[in-house]
Parts: sequence; C-alpha cells; structure tokens
Amino acid sequence: MAPSLASLRRIKFSTFVLVLQITFIIVIAFFGRYSDNESYPEIYGHGSERKGHENYAKYPNFMDVNGMIFVGFGFLMTFLKDYGFSSVGVNLLVSAVCIQWAAIVKGFIHADILAGEKFHIGVEQMVTYDFATATVLISFGAVLGKTSPIQLLVMGIIEILLAQLNEYVGVDLLHVRDIGESMFIHMFGAYFGLAVARVLYTEDIETSKKGCSVYQSDIFAMIGTVFLWIYWPSFNGGFAEDQQQRDRAYLNTFLSLCACTAMTFAVSAAVDKKGRFDMVHVQNSSVAGGVVVGATANMPMQPFGALIFGAVAGTISVLGYKFLTPRMAKYLKIHDTCGVHNLHGMPGLLAAIGSAVLAAMSENWSIHDREAIFPETFDQNSTVPGALGRTAGEQGGYQFLAAVITLGIAIGGGVFTGLILRLPIWNAPSEDRLFDDSNNWEIPGEHEHDTHSTNHVKDTTIQMDSGL
Amino acid sequence: MAPSLASLRRIKFSTFVLVLQITFIIVIAFFGRYSDNESYPEIYGHGSERKGHENYAKYPNFMDVNGMIFVGFGFLMTFLKDYGFSSVGVNLLVSAVCIQWAAIVKGFIHADILAGEKFHIGVEQMVTYDFATATVLISFGAVLGKTSPIQLLVMGIIEILLAQLNEYVGVDLLHVRDIGESMFIHMFGAYFGLAVARVLYTEDIETSKKGCSVYQSDIFAMIGTVFLWIYWPSFNGGFAEDQQQRDRAYLNTFLSLCACTAMTFAVSAAVDKKGRFDMVHVQNSSVAGGVVVGATANMPMQPFGALIFGAVAGTISVLGYKFLTPRMAKYLKIHDTCGVHNLHGMPGLLAAIGSAVLAAMSENWSIHDREAIFPETFDQNSTVPGALGRTAGEQGGYQFLAAVITLGIAIGGGVFTGLILRLPIWNAPSEDRLFDDSNNWEIPGEHEHDTHSTNHVKDTTIQMDSGL
Amino acid sequence: MAPSLASLRRIKFSTFVLVLQITFIIVIAFFGRYSDNESYPEIYGHGSERKGHENYAKYPNFMDVNGMIFVGFGFLMTFLKDYGFSSVGVNLLVSAVCIQWAAIVKGFIHADILAGEKFHIGVEQMVTYDFATATVLISFGAVLGKTSPIQLLVMGIIEILLAQLNEYVGVDLLHVRDIGESMFIHMFGAYFGLAVARVLYTEDIETSKKGCSVYQSDIFAMIGTVFLWIYWPSFNGGFAEDQQQRDRAYLNTFLSLCACTAMTFAVSAAVDKKGRFDMVHVQNSSVAGGVVVGATANMPMQPFGALIFGAVAGTISVLGYKFLTPRMAKYLKIHDTCGVHNLHGMPGLLAAIGSAVLAAMSENWSIHDREAIFPETFDQNSTVPGALGRTAGEQGGYQFLAAVITLGIAIGGGVFTGLILRLPIWNAPSEDRLFDDSNNWEIPGEHEHDTHSTNHVKDTTIQMDSGL
Repeated sequence: MAPSLASLRRIKFSTFVLVLQITFIIVIAFFGRYSDNESYPEIYGHGSERKGHENYAKYPNFMDVNGMIFVGFGFLMTFLKDYGFSSVGVNLLVSAVCIQWAAIVKGFIHADILAGEKFHIGVEQMVTYDFATATVLISFGAVLGKTSPIQLLVMGIIEILLAQLNEYVGVDLLHVRDIGESMFIHMFGAYFGLAVARVLYTEDIETSKKGCSVYQSDIFAMIGTVFLWIYWPSFNGGFAEDQQQRDRAYLNTFLSLCACTAMTFAVSAAVDKKGRFDMVHVQNSSVAGGVVVGATANMPMQPFGALIFGAVAGTISVLGYKFLTPRMAKYLKIHDTCGVHNLHGMPGLLAAIGSAVLAAMSENWSIHDREAIFPETFDQNSTVPGALGRTAGEQGGYQFLAAVITLGIAIGGGVFTGLILRLPIWNAPSEDRLFDDSNNWEIPGEHEHDTHSTNHVKDTTIQMDSGL
Repeated sequence: MAPSLASLRRIKFSTFVLVLQITFIIVIAFFGRYSDNESYPEIYGHGSERKGHENYAKYPNFMDVNGMIFVGFGFLMTFLKDYGFSSVGVNLLVSAVCIQWAAIVKGFIHADILAGEKFHIGVEQMVTYDFATATVLISFGAVLGKTSPIQLLVMGIIEILLAQLNEYVGVDLLHVRDIGESMFIHMFGAYFGLAVARVLYTEDIETSKKGCSVYQSDIFAMIGTVFLWIYWPSFNGGFAEDQQQRDRAYLNTFLSLCACTAMTFAVSAAVDKKGRFDMVHVQNSSVAGGVVVGATANMPMQPFGALIFGAVAGTISVLGYKFLTPRMAKYLKIHDTCGVHNLHGMPGLLAAIGSAVLAAMSENWSIHDREAIFPETFDQNSTVPGALGRTAGEQGGYQFLAAVITLGIAIGGGVFTGLILRLPIWNAPSEDRLFDDSNNWEIPGEHEHDTHSTNHVKDTTIQMDSGL
Repeated sequence: MAPSLASLRRIKFSTFVLVLQITFIIVIAFFGRYSDNESYPEIYGHGSERKGHENYAKYPNFMDVNGMIFVGFGFLMTFLKDYGFSSVGVNLLVSAVCIQWAAIVKGFIHADILAGEKFHIGVEQMVTYDFATATVLISFGAVLGKTSPIQLLVMGIIEILLAQLNEYVGVDLLHVRDIGESMFIHMFGAYFGLAVARVLYTEDIETSKKGCSVYQSDIFAMIGTVFLWIYWPSFNGGFAEDQQQRDRAYLNTFLSLCACTAMTFAVSAAVDKKGRFDMVHVQNSSVAGGVVVGATANMPMQPFGALIFGAVAGTISVLGYKFLTPRMAKYLKIHDTCGVHNLHGMPGLLAAIGSAVLAAMSENWSIHDREAIFPETFDQNSTVPGALGRTAGEQGGYQFLAAVITLGIAIGGGVFTGLILRLPIWNAPSEDRLFDDSNNWEIPGEHEHDTHSTNHVKDTTIQMDSGL
C-alpha cells in the first residue's frame, strides 16, 4: 500500500474521531450539567426515602444493560473467523461514541435549550444512553464486515438522531408504551440496518470466502449469547417506574427466553437434513425471546402468555434464518451478516403487534394495572396524570401506529444513511477484503518481526515520521 | 447416514421438545398464576417498606445465580476439545427446559392444586428455578460427552422431580437447614449423575481419543470457573431471610473460596511429578470452597472456620481428581467426565456433615442466631414459629439424616434414570462418536461449501423437503 | 528435568503455600472476628433503616469489583500466546492469597491488637480486600511471564504490606481523598511493579520468541477489557459514603471511559504507519479512563470535566505504548509486559495531579460538596468531624504530597522486593522459558498419552510415589 494512501486513511479516521470528541466536549460543556446539583441533599438527606431506594435498584440494572452492550453485543458478533477484533473492538469504539452523542441528542430533545436551559446528564440517564446505543449496535450486526469504522460512526450519528426523534414521537406525542423498546430499539435498529445493507450491497459479499465462522469463533460468540440471555430481564424491566411492573417485566422476560430457547433447538434440528443444531440459530434465536416481550413485558399476560410469546419468537426466528435470510440475499439483495432481521426485526414487529392487541384488551385488567400502564385510557375526569380519555381500542391503534411510523423512519433513514455511506470518502473496505480484520487492525503474527519480540515492545526501532 | 435415519433422529428430538414445550404452556396456563396479582399495591404502595427493600437485594442476587447457571456451568464444561458447542449450547437448552419444569414441579408440591388452588410464579421464585436447574447441570457434568440432548432432557425431567421431592422431605418435613443447598443440589446432583454414568458405562469411553482438552478449550473453561467463583457468595446467600445471615453467607463463602483456591494450587503441584499445576484441578477444585460451606454459610463459624472448610475442600477435591477418579473409572466403572464427584460430591458430603456438627453445637450460639437459624431447637413454649422443641443434638441428627436420604434418593434415582436412558430410543451417541459435537451440531468448515459462503447465507439452494 | 530438582520445586511451592494458608488461619483464628456479632439485630431489626439500605447497594458493587479482579485482570493478561493458563490461573491463586493477607494487614493496622482488641472481618470489608489485591495484580502485569508463582506470592505479601501502610499515611494521617484509589492502588501498583521489573531485567526478555500474542489470545484478552470497562464505575464509586458522591463517581467514570475509548482508537490509528488499530492499545488504553478519574470521580467536575480527563488519558496512554514503553525497555532496562505504566502509571499520576488541582479550587464548590468531600477545609469551629481548618490550597498540597510519598514507597519497595525475588530460591523461570506456561502447567496434548485418554482419567497408571 502506498504511504500516501495509508497516511490519508490514518489521518481521515483519526481526525474524524478527534473532531467528534472535541465537539462533544464543547457542546456538553456549554449545554450539559449534572442533574444532581440541587436536589441531592434534599432527596437523600431528608426527603423521600423512596427515591433513594429506587436508585439502589436502578444501578445494578444499568450494570446489566452495560454488560449487554459491551459484552453481549460485542462478543455475539465475534462469530466471523477473521473479524473478531473488529466485532468486539469496534463495538467498543462505536458504543463509546454513541453514548456521548445520545446524551447530547436526548438533551436537546428534552431540555429547552433555546430558553437557556441546560440539559441534564445524570446517573439515572446512563441506562438510556446505553439503550440508544443498542439501536446502532443492532444495525452494526446487519452490516458487519462490510463497513469501515468511520462508516459505522457516521451511521451511528445519523441513526441515533433519527431513532431518538422516532422515540419522541412514539412516547411523548403518541403516548405509546414500549418498556423494553422492542419497537424503538429492536425494530428500528434492525430495519434501519437492513436498509443500509441493501444500499451497500455488492456481488462480492456473496462470494467472499471470509464471511464464515470457525469452531473457536463460534464459542467466542456464545459468550455474547449467554450474557445477553441472562441480562435481558434487566433490559426489559429497567425502565419500569413501579416495583410491580418491574418485577413482572423481569419474570415475563425470563419465561419468554426459556420457551424461546427450547423452540430454537427444536426448530433448528427440524430444519436440518441431518437433524443437527445450527450454531447460528442457537447464538441468535435463543435470545429472540427477550425482544418479543419487550413491548409488553410489564403487562399482565400471565406466565403462560410470556411462554407463548417466547415459543413463537424462537420458531419464527429460526425459520427466518433458514428460509428468509438466504432469499432476502438472493432476491432483495439484502445481505444481513448477523441475521438481525431474525433476532431483532421480526420478533420486534411481533412484539409491537402484541402490544397493540394487549392494549386493546386492557379494559379487562385490574384498575391498578390500567392506571399504571395505560393512564391514557382513563377518562378526562380521572385524576391520573396524562389521562387522555382514550378507549383501550384506541390505545391499541396508537401502539400499532407507532410501529408503522418506526418502520417508515427506520427504512427511509437507513436508505438515506446508506447513500451517504456510499460516498467514496469513508475508507470503505475494498471488495476483496470484506469480513477481514486486517483492513483495520495490526494482526499479530502477520509480519515476521512481530513474532520475534515481546508484544508491547514491538517497535524498538522507532520511526520518528510515524508520530502524530 | 441414511436419510431415513436422519429424519427419524430429527423428528424425534424436535417432536420431544415441541411436546414438552406445549405441555408446559398448557399446564402453566391451567394451574400457574403470577404471585403478584393482589398483593403489590399494598406491599409497595402503602404497606411494609421492608418487603420492598428485600426485593432490591434479591434481584441482583438472582442475576448472579443466573450467571452461574448459563455462563458458569456452560463454560466450565467447554474444556473438551471437540465438545464446546454441546457444553455451552446444550447447557442453554437443558436449563431453559428445566427452569420451566421446575416451576411446575415446585408449584404442584407447594400449592394445593386438588383444592383448586393455583400455584404461584413470581420474581422471587425465579432463583429457585435456577437452583433446581443447577442440580441437573451438575449431573450433566458427570455424563458430558456420553449422552444425547434428548437423554439429557429426560434425565433433567426425572431428576428435578426427585430432587424437589427430596428437598421437600428435607426442608418441609425434617426441618433441615441447607442455605446454599450443598445437600439438596450439590450432593444430589453429583451422586445422581454418577449413578447415571455408571449405568451408561461402556469400554469405549475409556479408549475414546476425543475426551481431552486443548490449550484454547481449557481457557474457555476458565471463563466458567471465574464466574462461578465470583458469584458463589450470591448462590449461598440468596435464600437467607435476614440481612445478618445473608451477609454472613456472603462472607463465609468468599473466605472459603480463597482458602480453597490456595490449597488447590498447593496440592495440585504436590501431586504432580514435575511440580506443575493441572488445569483440571484449577478449573474445578478452586470452586469447591463454595460447595463446602453451602450448608453452613449462614452459621456463626467465624472467619477462621470458613477458611478451614475451604482449605479442606480444596485439598480433598484435588486428591479426588488425582487418586479417586481414575480408580472409580477402573474399578467401579464410573466415568465422571467433569469430575463432579470432586467438585460437588465430596465437598457436598463434607458440607452436610459440617452442618450436622455445627447444629449439634448450636447451643452455644447467641439467642439471635439460634432463633434465626434453628428455631426448632427452642422449646415448645417458645413463640418462635416452627419451634419443635428439639435439642441441638437432635437437630444435628436430622441434618445428618437428610444427607443420608439425599444420598439414597440420588443414587437410586440415578440408577433408575440410567436404565431408562439405555433404552435404544433416545438418539444416544454411537460408541465411536463420544465427546464429539459433530453428532449434534453442524460444524463450521466441515464441508467444502461452508467455507465458501458467508455464514448466515449457507443454504442459498434451499431444499423444500427440509422444512418443518 | 532430574527427579530430584522437580521434587524440590514441587515441595517448595506446595510447602510455601501450605505454610501461608495455615498461618493465615491461625492468625485470623486468634485475632479476627466477624464484624456483625453484636450490632445486627439492632441495626437491621429495629434501628436505622438507612444502614440496611446501604448494604443493599454495596453488595452488588462488591460483586462488580470482584468481577474486575478475577475476570477483568485475569483475562486481560491472557493476551500472551503461551501464557494464558498462568494469566488467568495464577491470577486466581495470587488473588485468593492476597485477599486473606489483606484482611490480616488491614486488621493489624486498624485494630488495637496490642490492647487485646480483635480486628473485624465483615461483608462491608470484602471490597477493600479486593482493592488491596488489585494493587498486586497491576504489578503482576509488569512482570507477567518473567516470574514464578512463588515469586508473585512473595511480591504480593510485601506489596500489600507496603501499599496498606502507604494508604494509611495518605488517608488516615494526611487526610487525602482518593475515592477510586488512583494513587494508592493504580500508581502504587504500577511503579512498584516497574521497579520489580527493572531489578529482574535480563537480556533474554527482549529476545524471547514467546512474549507475543496470537489472534485468539488477543480476543481472550478482550474479555478482560470489556469487563473492566463495564465495572469500572463501581470500582470508583464503591467507597463513596453518600449517595450523591457515589452516583457522581459512577457517572464521571462512565463518561471518562467513553471519551478515553474514542481517543484510544483515534491515536492508535494515527501512530500506525498504515493507519490501523493496535489491539494492545484497545485492550489497555480504553480503560485508562477509569484510572484517570479515580482520585476525583466524586468531585463536582461537571460532565465535560470527566470527558476531558478521559480524552487526555486515552491519548497519553496510547502514546506511552507507542513511544515510551520501547524506550523504557531500551534505555532504562524496564520491560513492562502489559504496559501497566500506560494503563495505571501515567493515568494514575495524572489523576493525582488532577485531585490536587481540584482540591485547591474547591473553595468554589457548594457547601454540601465541601462538607462531604473535604471536611478538612472547614475551619476548626466547624462541627463537621475531621475538620482541620485547612485552606483549599493546603488540601491540594496534601493531595500532591500523598502522590509523591506513594511514588517513593512504591519505587523503593519495588526495588527492595525485586532484590529479594532475585534470590535463587523461588523457582524463577529459566531464561529460555520466559512467557511460557509449560514451566508451571501440565499442558494438554504435550505428551502423546494425554491425547489418547479422556481428560480427567489421565493417570490410570498411578505412581504411588507421586502422592503428597
């Protein structure tokens, strides 16, 4: 590779990230403040003990979600044999950037910046930044191995903006409930990513010899799977505001995952000619049970309802991998590296429809549940804040509407983003080096001299021209 | 392999799991209900704050136990070089099925179903389902590589039934204390598994070339070890009902693990001719310190008591691997793949004996500890609920009796289960394919065409006859 | 290897650990007691509810730190291709021993043993034992691959003693604040380890062919990185005594890590001739953001302040790996295997300086923050306990002084320890077997017969002379 090209490449990425990071610092310095400044001594010293307790519950919850973002998503993508560094490494980069950007975007949406207000950054918001980032990591799965780090960052920046606006429309304007964000994160991330993948499609993707797993890389990916699996109840329950809904979300998610996992194995063996399991199904479809109850996890569906949701999700997810994914590649030219359509797309869509149906039937719920989950369905004389006098059926309609809007913004935004990513300025991987870490990483053992020195002392002969 | 045989195999597994899953859903739909329906608004909105607080503590505790089940047990078993997919993958399947089954079995044992009562499934019970599942995963370790997924599921279904009945006898009838379930989980799981392994023994097991580790698989197994190690205090402390006992269980377990780990290394080097450590000892014996205080973790043994328990457990566990396991294989025809006898069996037995001895000496404890741990040893005029007027010595006798009953049910049940598993209908692995993932998994790189396409788009040519 | 030498080696290690473990048990039996004996019934049954709540928060926090010690540090060091067993395995041994020793050392420092007082070992102290152990694991990183297990244990015993005395001087005598122990753990551990590495330096280290990574070992190391990353907020916030400081520490650390990670990638690409990322930087420099706010995480620096700290840490850490580490090896003969100078040393130093500067500027803080963080800067008429009537500037001076003392004790203690470790009695690795697990581990597949038998049944032919 010619030095000039390499320099350009190096300078482009580094400059891009440097400018981003400095911008984030300046914007947050001007507009962002701790949320705690005034209120803590009151809240924790003298006032409502209640508030304090909730934080005790929320921080471990955030830690679990944090584990899903960095360990779960990061390792789930390591299944590709020559793309492990990028999967878990670039996952770290993208998350670190998106978390900061999410803080800014959420701040500008929710604070009245023009009136001189500062937006708040607080411990209780950290989990929402992780949630916003999850959207991007889902899309990352659809384009894994086919994009450069800069492309992923550009995608993340646009996607978070659109996803947060979409969430604002759904939650703040339409008063839709989606506690585990099956619509606003999973569906959005999946269909956005698929749209980007469609625009970036080339024939080389299908003929690449790199885009497959080996035995060890599949076990690395299982690290991601099991951590996503165990922490998913915290993902779905973390936003609940009362203890009953939170606990119910934990329980429903746990049950759904169990039924989903059982059906994943059953269907995976059934669709294989030799009756064997496919590791791809186990890695991904097993956790579709978390997605499918994301929109309804806090609702009174009883344990068997959660099991049914999970069993259906596992089934359609495996069938998707087996029958839909190859056809989407062949006929629609959508190459979905991790199969996010099967893990996040279809189960998310199913979750949205489920939430519409349950909402429409919510008249039969206990008063407490109706008040807590859909205060909008109380009449306007109700003292419950936010009561809009909707009927249960109308609430169901709004839930469905939010899913349609999410789909529209995700696909439209994904196509738009894909077109931007096709501009020949983002260090995109060349067509013969797809699914290949060596594009972006110094690979150990690559050069003779590497194996002859200790790891951290590789460049004893220092070229002064290689500095910043 | 002939298509007809493969079809049969495929249909058998898938049908079995499908029937199980549908049965679970129907039974839970008829007999299972949320535990929260009535009580939440009172408990959390107005009533005892205390109850609420405990849940804040219990959910993170459950998460830790969940980590042990899916990450800990799953990865600990990946040490076999060609059996990693089955270890961590089938561990997921078995757990997902056993958790649901445990909910049903526990429900039928504890609710008065015949009187029309529904059993409860609630967030506070989730950890008990994980505990019940742990029993099966321990037995899984004894038969690892020598059983098919269906065999493991059949084993799990029988074992959970028997183990829960045994626990009912011990806890509800005999009023025995076993906070970290050293008897009811570890001993039971180990001796049950060993009995199954005995019945399934064939000469081929000893001559198989697959049943060993490689460098990388041993490091994967260490993921399991370290997560078991760090979370074990939560396993032993999770059931405690007051804060003092919970904290003491955390502390004793932590101390026991430390002493156990130190002795594991000391003894491992001592029994090797070249003074080197054996990875098998480190992977397994290091965590025997968690098992050995499981029955007594909440008792006032003082820090040095916990250290002594741990040091002894580490020592006997390594000696067991070195001297007992090969002899059990040679003379008793018990092949114990993971050495569960050394990790769960002997340390569990030691824990049971320890609990009997401590119980017998409990007259010297503080009033508070006696009330909290052994209310049965108060006289019948005591106002403490459950006081049976036992002497401390009698309580010690009951602790010992429970261990004997556990041993009996475990071994008898294991032999019975083993005989059922020998029926030639469970897709058992053929004798030349032991310890081999390729029995049950599509292995990446196995076929030429696999490495020529991207991972999730393997079957572009779709055989319509391979559908459900 | 001659049998006699092997026997000596075996006996030496085993005897050393056995004596240590027995000594620990005896000392703790004589001098250590549960901290809970008297106070629990009051505190939890009737008294201050507050105290109880804090424990709910602290245990999950401890679990996170525990994860950093055993998973984080353990796997971060697995990057060496032939040293994975030692990294994650010996990390377990060293931690298990150091935790017990830390309990004793802390006990003797803080209790009046001579007056017959017992020292306390309680659930709330467990995290402090983990912290003390972290110091040793950092030094372990500097000498990784160049020391025997006995050498590491000897180092740990001396280091914990010195580090705890240093912490006593800083915290108890100088009233310095270092909530996440950037000085007392990270700086101390790094400079102590570097001093040891200097004394142990030989030419063979530089010419060894083993001291490098391979693709898979680098991914194993990323397990360590991501768990350190996600849990670091709990490390920095765990010691905070009020909720506001704890939450602020969580938030500042999270933000600092994000900015640090972004800059790590930016600078890593910038200093590579081909613009690629170096896995070593990503594995290590990404988490320097946790170290750099360790001393100030609870201080009111606003979100942008935390981002600046993190961005600077990521930058200097990568530059350190690229330019400083090779020069330290070449000119100073300090070979720093894991580059702890870049991850813990320089960021720790920066944290210390930052804490001095912020302390000096603390006059502008709110009353609440000054009271909570630097009660020493209130005048002597203040009712706040510990008020020493210092000015803010003086407090800054004391912060700086503590850093200087830490540096002095760490370097002096490290040189002293290195000299002891050079005594030819500690089974040091021979010069041709550096960075090599086969020194201390039975490696699977090493001998013909290993691959022909199942893993746990290796020694069917038992030599009775190989017993204890």
